[in-house]
Amino acid sequence: MTESAPRPTLEAVAARAGVSRATVSRVVNGGDGVRRPLVERVRRAVEELGYVPNQAARSLVTRRHDAIAVVVAEPETRVFADPFFALQLRGISKELTAHDSQLVLLLTEGRADHARVGRYLAGGHVDGALVFSLHLEDPLPELVRRAGVPTVFGGRPGWGDGTGGAVYVDSDNRGGAREAVRHLVGLGRRRIAHITGALDQTSAVDRLDGFRDVMAGAAPELIAEGDFTPAGGERAMRRLLERCPDLDAVFAANDLSASGALRVLRALGRRVPEDVAVIGFDDMLPVAEQTDPPLTTIRQDIEEMGRLMARLLLRGLDRRGGTPDSGEASAAAEAPSGVVLPTTLVRRASA
Amino acid sequence: MTESAPRPTLEAVAARAGVSRATVSRVVNGGDGVRRPLVERVRRAVEELGYVPNQAARSLVTRRHDAIAVVVAEPETRVFADPFFALQLRGISKELTAHDSQLVLLLTEGRADHARVGRYLAGGHVDGALVFSLHLEDPLPELVRRAGVPTVFGGRPGWGDGTGGAVYVDSDNRGGAREAVRHLVGLGRRRIAHITGALDQTSAVDRLDGFRDVMAGAAPELIAEGDFTPAGGERAMRRLLERCPDLDAVFAANDLSASGALRVLRALGRRVPEDVAVIGFDDMLPVAEQTDPPLTTIRQDIEEMGRLMARLLLRGLDRRGGTPDSGEASAAAEAPSGVVLPTTLVRRASA
Repeated sequence: MTESAPRPTLEAVAARAGVSRATVSRVVNGGDGVRRPLVERVRRAVEELGYVPNQAARSLVTRRHDAIAVVVAEPETRVFADPFFALQLRGISKELTAHDSQLVLLLTEGRADHARVGRYLAGGHVDGALVFSLHLEDPLPELVRRAGVPTVFGGRPGWGDGTGGAVYVDSDNRGGAREAVRHLVGLGRRRIAHITGALDQTSAVDRLDGFRDVMAGAAPELIAEGDFTPAGGERAMRRLLERCPDLDAVFAANDLSASGALRVLRALGRRVPEDVAVIGFDDMLPVAEQTDPPLTTIRQDIEEMGRLMARLLLRGLDRRGGTPDSGEASAAAEAPSGVVLPTTLVRRASA
Repeated sequence: MTESAPRPTLEAVAARAGVSRATVSRVVNGGDGVRRPLVERVRRAVEELGYVPNQAARSLVTRRHDAIAVVVAEPETRVFADPFFALQLRGISKELTAHDSQLVLLLTEGRADHARVGRYLAGGHVDGALVFSLHLEDPLPELVRRAGVPTVFGGRPGWGDGTGGAVYVDSDNRGGAREAVRHLVGLGRRRIAHITGALDQTSAVDRLDGFRDVMAGAAPELIAEGDFTPAGGERAMRRLLERCPDLDAVFAANDLSASGALRVLRALGRRVPEDVAVIGFDDMLPVAEQTDPPLTTIRQDIEEMGRLMARLLLRGLDRRGGTPDSGEASAAAEAPSGVVLPTTLVRRASA
């Protein structure tokens, strides 16, 4: 511990002024109901000791912390292993820094720790929260709602009517998936398979829906469940080849799982794109450029999504004039409930 | 913003009870100096609205937040690009989770944002701080000291007498460097070069000192400054080969810069280890195993360093009985000022 410059405490001020802790607290919070001579004594002690009131005290008055919590609903091991999160955090960090707001990243070991995250959010330490990578059945959205802090979600939340009045930023997952599959159809492919993402996330469900929009009536064995990781992509690709040895194209729900699928295809001697065309989703660099062959994919601007989430949250806070608990109804009426960013096809060699 | 379940505010309680905000605040903080009937009215309003006092208010009393800040004195881009930080955070996260303490990672775009980090630390949002990757001339250590929160540093801080009473966890950088260079000498190498780390960090300075301990009187052109990154290792290796074409070994200050050096040696047709033996520092996996050839290196247990930092901080907080500002002197007297972990040689193919 650094012991060299202890911050003077409320207790030290109370001792110096010869008053109770509660009296100091009242003076610091505005002085209501404290006799004039006591107020003077406390103020003198505050000055002599160079006491800086704890922000916990100050924030009772101002209710502004200039800090925004970011919660990624994944264990910290995945947050650091999947470049998607680093990119989204980059966009958030740039936007918050431009507004001199501190990025407070709340890391966990997994879902069991989300109650603690809820307590921190409710604890008056941040002005708002950015929450992404939600999973169905996760108590986090409910904890966030109960914490009562203004929140913007990354990705469409999956509860109730699909939004529950929440503000979110998302990519056009369903439209992007349709474009991916139409591209494969345009190449003359007919036995098109799909490796899904983690189906407890709306992004994976929406991409599967987009696949089905184009491939209405596709045989169920052409769909294999993945989990957005390279290892999950490998497992799904092996299952697909066992079930449908004659498949001629694969749409993978993201670039990481496409990279796993490519490894399996190469190991089994299938040429890409000649025998099997492969298309991903994300345009995650450098992954998509460094696969063999380089990956054709659907681009979404992940950094911009992060930036936009932060911008919507800060704008909402400004509108409330620094009192996040007031004006809820009018803010809800004005605010868009979801901002959906477009996607674009990026052609490389794999399809 | 999630608008569905606003948390009842202090103002709402005041309006319901027909009293002032200050009165509610006083009742919530213990009720000193408030008339009995008013206390009753406020308590009733609190119950009726289901008001949960803001932790900002509660923490004025308990002074415990069950949250620990982690500050990496690097821009967020480096935090996510260098696996060293993910490993150290993994150790910290496991230890904090085991104690149900929230890991609060404060990210920045760079040094210009450190004043804001200091304000957050001083703001009463965390019980303590873990700070690593300090650089000389960085205002952060001083800001942390002024914030007055108990702090444990990762790596020996470089100010004043070298410790300034700070508690830190470090590896035996100098001893490990000596072992690396002695290993090269033992292989019969005589023209041994060194690629340093960022020399505004004590870990880099200590490894350079270890190199000099063994190679007393080494020609200055055998030392090239790097910055702990692969690109810095490449640049330093090129400079070394221009200046000393006859060098027969390189000790790189970490595995990432060794990986850059290996790429340059291969590109220029130097065989490793036949022509030039290469040794790194860290035993960073998978980097050290995936270089060509696999890297001989000095292992430090980075995850354990993170775990130990967290353990020392939590132990210090427990000793203070939840009042971090009391008992400073006795804690300082008991606490070790630095814990230095041993390193070990890991032999692979490169030396």
